[in-house]
Amino acid sequence: MVSVAILGGGNVSFRLSKALSNNSEIILNQIYSRSKLSFHFDSVPVEKIQDLNLLKEADVYIISVSDDAVVSLAEKLPIKNKLVVHTAGSINMNQLPLNNRKGVFYPLQTFSKSKEVDFQKIPICIEAESLNDLDTLRQLAESISNSVYEIDSDQRRIIHLSACFTNNFTNHLFYIAQKLGEEKQIPFEIFHPLIQETIEKLNVLSPYDAQTGPAKRNDLKTIEKHLELLENTGFKEIYELMTQSIKQTYE
Amino acid sequence: MVSVAILGGGNVSFRLSKALSNNSEIILNQIYSRSKLSFHFDSVPVEKIQDLNLLKEADVYIISVSDDAVVSLAEKLPIKNKLVVHTAGSINMNQLPLNNRKGVFYPLQTFSKSKEVDFQKIPICIEAESLNDLDTLRQLAESISNSVYEIDSDQRRIIHLSACFTNNFTNHLFYIAQKLGEEKQIPFEIFHPLIQETIEKLNVLSPYDAQTGPAKRNDLKTIEKHLELLENTGFKEIYELMTQSIKQTYE
Repeated sequence: MVSVAILGGGNVSFRLSKALSNNSEIILNQIYSRSKLSFHFDSVPVEKIQDLNLLKEADVYIISVSDDAVVSLAEKLPIKNKLVVHTAGSINMNQLPLNNRKGVFYPLQTFSKSKEVDFQKIPICIEAESLNDLDTLRQLAESISNSVYEIDSDQRRIIHLSACFTNNFTNHLFYIAQKLGEEKQIPFEIFHPLIQETIEKLNVLSPYDAQTGPAKRNDLKTIEKHLELLENTGFKEIYELMTQSIKQTYE
Repeated sequence: MVSVAILGGGNVSFRLSKALSNNSEIILNQIYSRSKLSFHFDSVPVEKIQDLNLLKEADVYIISVSDDAVVSLAEKLPIKNKLVVHTAGSINMNQLPLNNRKGVFYPLQTFSKSKEVDFQKIPICIEAESLNDLDTLRQLAESISNSVYEIDSDQRRIIHLSACFTNNFTNHLFYIAQKLGEEKQIPFEIFHPLIQETIEKLNVLSPYDAQTGPAKRNDLKTIEKHLELLENTGFKEIYELMTQSIKQTYE
């Protein structure tokens, strides 16, 4: 059994507390939040506190606040020599203060309060200073996920960066596609199967081998036509740069 | 009953002939290809010809060759006043020659010979000069897909362009993520659930509303860190341009 306190009231905190409170191998003691928790947390049957001095003894304290606020909250904790971990992709483990044992418990996913996610499939990246603490984090992670990775802070900052490409920028490309079609009444749903197939190919091909399209084929005639269509849309430069990058990859 | 001849031996032709030959509402007469068809076509039980003069009478002739070759093949057909359609995203219907009735039968999907696709889910964009021919194409399309759209050539060229963003460029972003992680031994599979969730969000949110990340939040500290990590990778400019475009979108 691992006992846990969660500190923070955001999306990650909510999804994590949901997963942990439903778990027979875990005792979720408390959720701390400086301000009142949103109504979503009503469905999590656990003590909620707004005063750090009310924190009970726990095996792991999980700080799950915005990346900017992690260190300052860690510094305020009225505990010593406990295992304190954060869930932030971009914060090095060593930025945590020295008064407690340090660790990281980073679920690699995009969370929203309104959309359920299956935690079992979410990769959890764990890191700790001692093998003992790493074991505790592994036990905790494996209780809610089938996909646990030991990842150090150096790797994690690359993962956090790559997640911008695979999630944030990918989503922006979808936005561009929708925007381009708006004027001509093209329903964005028409692209869903293509997008789904783009993803499914990754199960059988590497992204390098899965690449198709005019840039890969160096089909200058089609590229020229596309650039004309992109005049005054604001997206021509992105098309040019992506096309150039794909060309260079396959030169 | 609609009778069909397919002209071409590429990926689209293969998947289309598979779907049509399995269909009780359709008679697939023949597949024409200038050169010998690949072994994949052995699984399609239909007459294969290499001489255009052997073409039989059919309700629809589907030209499914590379975009560059569509028009010249159409000009060689020894038939008159028949319904001749192509499957090319970037070719205007009116580029087809005048000796036959023109149309388009464009399945919006990325095809490979090695990976099965469920044709029922593939959007098929149809276009014709007359309502009669449009009806024939609709009957043909609905026999293999649940998702049939009447799309004119003007709309189709935008769809073809947008498909570059949603498929080609998206895949290249995945390639970049993999490449960035290579040196640090980060397995690309770790991103699969994040990528899957990025797509699934589109079922409940528009791409505009689904956007997250440092660019959207204008989190300059994280962006700065990411740009440092991207030095000498060749991908810094893409990061900058995408970040700038996201910022402008939410200004």
